[in-house]
Amino acid sequence: MSTAWQPVRDASGSSRRLTLDDLARRVDGRLEGVSDPEQEIEGVRPLESAAESDLSFVHAGSYLKQAASSRAAAFLIPESLDPTAVAAELGERPRIVVRSSQLAVAQALDEFFVLPRPSPGVHPTAVVGKDCELGEGVAIGPYAVIGDGCHLADGVVVEAHTVVGRDCVVGTDSWLHANCVLYDGSVLGERVRVHSGAIVGGHGFGYASVAGIHHKIPQVGRAVLGDDVEVGCGSAVDRALVDETRIGEGTKIDNQVQVGHNVRTGRGCLLCGQAGIGGTARLGDHVVLAGQVGVVDHAQLGDGVSVAAGSKVLRSVDAGRTLGGAPRVQDIGDWRRASSAVTRLPELLRRVKRLERQLAELSSRSSSESDDRS
Amino acid sequence: MSTAWQPVRDASGSSRRLTLDDLARRVDGRLEGVSDPEQEIEGVRPLESAAESDLSFVHAGSYLKQAASSRAAAFLIPESLDPTAVAAELGERPRIVVRSSQLAVAQALDEFFVLPRPSPGVHPTAVVGKDCELGEGVAIGPYAVIGDGCHLADGVVVEAHTVVGRDCVVGTDSWLHANCVLYDGSVLGERVRVHSGAIVGGHGFGYASVAGIHHKIPQVGRAVLGDDVEVGCGSAVDRALVDETRIGEGTKIDNQVQVGHNVRTGRGCLLCGQAGIGGTARLGDHVVLAGQVGVVDHAQLGDGVSVAAGSKVLRSVDAGRTLGGAPRVQDIGDWRRASSAVTRLPELLRRVKRLERQLAELSSRSSSESDDRS
Amino acid sequence: MSTAWQPVRDASGSSRRLTLDDLARRVDGRLEGVSDPEQEIEGVRPLESAAESDLSFVHAGSYLKQAASSRAAAFLIPESLDPTAVAAELGERPRIVVRSSQLAVAQALDEFFVLPRPSPGVHPTAVVGKDCELGEGVAIGPYAVIGDGCHLADGVVVEAHTVVGRDCVVGTDSWLHANCVLYDGSVLGERVRVHSGAIVGGHGFGYASVAGIHHKIPQVGRAVLGDDVEVGCGSAVDRALVDETRIGEGTKIDNQVQVGHNVRTGRGCLLCGQAGIGGTARLGDHVVLAGQVGVVDHAQLGDGVSVAAGSKVLRSVDAGRTLGGAPRVQDIGDWRRASSAVTRLPELLRRVKRLERQLAELSSRSSSESDDRS
Repeated sequence: MSTAWQPVRDASGSSRRLTLDDLARRVDGRLEGVSDPEQEIEGVRPLESAAESDLSFVHAGSYLKQAASSRAAAFLIPESLDPTAVAAELGERPRIVVRSSQLAVAQALDEFFVLPRPSPGVHPTAVVGKDCELGEGVAIGPYAVIGDGCHLADGVVVEAHTVVGRDCVVGTDSWLHANCVLYDGSVLGERVRVHSGAIVGGHGFGYASVAGIHHKIPQVGRAVLGDDVEVGCGSAVDRALVDETRIGEGTKIDNQVQVGHNVRTGRGCLLCGQAGIGGTARLGDHVVLAGQVGVVDHAQLGDGVSVAAGSKVLRSVDAGRTLGGAPRVQDIGDWRRASSAVTRLPELLRRVKRLERQLAELSSRSSSESDDRS
Repeated sequence: MSTAWQPVRDASGSSRRLTLDDLARRVDGRLEGVSDPEQEIEGVRPLESAAESDLSFVHAGSYLKQAASSRAAAFLIPESLDPTAVAAELGERPRIVVRSSQLAVAQALDEFFVLPRPSPGVHPTAVVGKDCELGEGVAIGPYAVIGDGCHLADGVVVEAHTVVGRDCVVGTDSWLHANCVLYDGSVLGERVRVHSGAIVGGHGFGYASVAGIHHKIPQVGRAVLGDDVEVGCGSAVDRALVDETRIGEGTKIDNQVQVGHNVRTGRGCLLCGQAGIGGTARLGDHVVLAGQVGVVDHAQLGDGVSVAAGSKVLRSVDAGRTLGGAPRVQDIGDWRRASSAVTRLPELLRRVKRLERQLAELSSRSSSESDDRS
Repeated sequence: MSTAWQPVRDASGSSRRLTLDDLARRVDGRLEGVSDPEQEIEGVRPLESAAESDLSFVHAGSYLKQAASSRAAAFLIPESLDPTAVAAELGERPRIVVRSSQLAVAQALDEFFVLPRPSPGVHPTAVVGKDCELGEGVAIGPYAVIGDGCHLADGVVVEAHTVVGRDCVVGTDSWLHANCVLYDGSVLGERVRVHSGAIVGGHGFGYASVAGIHHKIPQVGRAVLGDDVEVGCGSAVDRALVDETRIGEGTKIDNQVQVGHNVRTGRGCLLCGQAGIGGTARLGDHVVLAGQVGVVDHAQLGDGVSVAAGSKVLRSVDAGRTLGGAPRVQDIGDWRRASSAVTRLPELLRRVKRLERQLAELSSRSSSESDDRS
């Protein structure tokens, strides 16, 4: 409230336990090295903190040695790991081989923990405006404020203190955590999650500057978040000048990310912490911006572009490229070489100076020898 | 609530329409290529989405070709564009020639949209402290909390859930959107706008560090925003150690901008998204910081300084310069050349290595020839 | 509310005054150049704004000249300053010599200003959940919302509109300013201060990406802030995937800082404005990240590491180093030389080009001379 996960408990109040066999089925995996498939698992923990009743996980071969010395009862192992290497390190220790160990971790955690959905109903202190439509099972928390003319579909959760402007639409099973704000007219798809402190549909930074005075340009568009979008704590997605700022289906936005007015992103993008996207930029599908990346106004990034942490993208980028750099982005290998070279620049300056001196000497020697001979 | 624009409607509820002739007068422009000045315009849209009844706009000559293929009924054109080029592309298509097309867009949008001001009055759930003075027409929304001893001048709007500390002063027609916070003692001028999630007057990051312990230094000053300042979503302007942090008249602050304690900015600055200004820095008038710019503590930036996106300003800068770079800012042209050169550094290293080898060969050859001759 | 300092007043309502002698005792300092130890001081101000009844301060020798021309009644001077230089500039002007002038400023300000603690009690509009334990002297402000099962120890302050999730623990004398959010299960030590807009325990950015779909990985851990931690306006500390995100005792976090899931920091770190720390990174004790620094996921920074503003740390760093750079951090001196060299790169390119031309000429001349002789 703002809500997070709680352990799953059975009727008697004790934490859930699952057998290895049962867990393997639930994460769609194959048991290996298991002598007792009925062994009970009580939780999921990383290698360094796993107890004897925990399931743990190995995402890459480099962690196998650490796994071998972990106390975990069993491990999730991706099928991409070399079976010989796995057997060499883990011998007869129990493991569940899965297609994606990341996904299996998510599935296993979902067996032991639940994100409790608040009970349906409108808290007596919530203020709901005129002409609102509330679907079935909608839960509105203490002091939430919903403006006139909103439509909240079935299963929507609005936690304490969240403010929804007028004429907003929030799709089925979407969840607004405590203390977030939707400006008037914002539109959210289904299963959207907006975290505390996030703000959707703010005014956008648009001014007509004449003789040093910045006149506000009305930002009369709106912000639209597609299905399955998540917006992190304190992030902001501004409304459009006209038309729509649009975040594509399944795009995930981390904390403190700024998305300017008129931006459009494709599906399944990942925008990591403190990234910033300037006005009217366009991102294709599955674009990844690592932490603190900046994208300049009006830039166009094609599908699948991936930008390394802290880079500044000051121009458009073709699809499929993996880039780094500031202020000139380059292919990531070139960027690594260039930035390594930067650290050697003082030495390079000295070498060039020495070359100049040696060449001058050689040149004057050569001239004088020519003179000698002439 | 948090409020954004609504279409202007006439008494019958239908959206506003204006004739070209009327619109031209309202944006102080001159009609060209217009056969029917009574043609009705229903809205304003950018070139790519304009419908047949929309006014659109061209800010630069490079967009004239796109304008020619747009469906818009008419275009706002800046008088600075070459009339021959305009006529070549737009022939007899209707247009309104104006001094600033940006300003005209703002004016035209203001004809079709309105930012509805909440009705005056104090919502029954708002908490207003002792000894507050509320001017005429003040509107205070649901769950707003106003501390003791505040003065809110005529026409001030405080939206839902906003918290105003004690002894704050908010000038005429200023507008605090939902969920923002003024710490005790903050002072806002007239027509100031503070957006959701913004925080004015926070404590400032001041500690006396002795033997690894950081003792909090009381930050007993305040934050003062001049007339016509706008503060974006999630931005923070800290109070001063003593005295005042001051944001000059007409300065506009985008989202997620951090302004440290004791900072002073001049008039009409533009601080773009995620810019950060370290403590006690001074900015002159009309300084522009692009997105993600950092300015170090105590730096002084003269009037009219402009800093490119992502740059880090680690020293003071004379008035009038346009700069880029991190961590060494340079004049923008030099910076572009230097950053382009960085991408060629690995090649440069190879060239220097080759030079060294060739010079060594030449030098040894030259020596041996000298030896031969001697 | 959000609370800041108020002047200390005596029973008659007038501001506090203290004699120089008294003040010197309270800041544990030694009077010098004082003819009248009974002279009354009314406040503390920096050199440029100090009035004739103010105490001012000099943190470094370079400010002595400015001190000499200030109107201040007396100065706090660190004992590390050369007494001859001090005497040369300040002659017989009154001063208090102290071990740390920063700490003495803090102590002196604490004599004249107080951060008023709200009266104990639960505001009638606050919503407190079931099974909460509230210690003695707890103050809960208007519209605060406390979830079920929370423990707020003695002297805790929760200001207006702050939302505390279920099962949170807040230690003695901790203070949550207006409009901040603790997600479920967060744990705060003693004397922790969380500022407006800050969010503790958010979900963390964890997805299992399979075939372009990002599946949310439950983040079932929690966030734990040690004693004496301060979290600035709008900052976020995410909860852990499993286990704990931990901020060490006495660590101070400025505004708009992002701390990813599973991060652990040591004691007494300083994380300046807009710094970002990627998931699972580890910071030792007394690490300093200047403004806008980024630390990549999983990096390990040893005790006492210090990183210059705007730098990006993309790998682990040994204890004790002072670094700068992006994307390659270097020792700070090397980094300064390298970044200075970057600005000379275009010139360097020209020099190498010239060397290549000269060498080619010399080489061909040398060859032709060899030919001549053969």
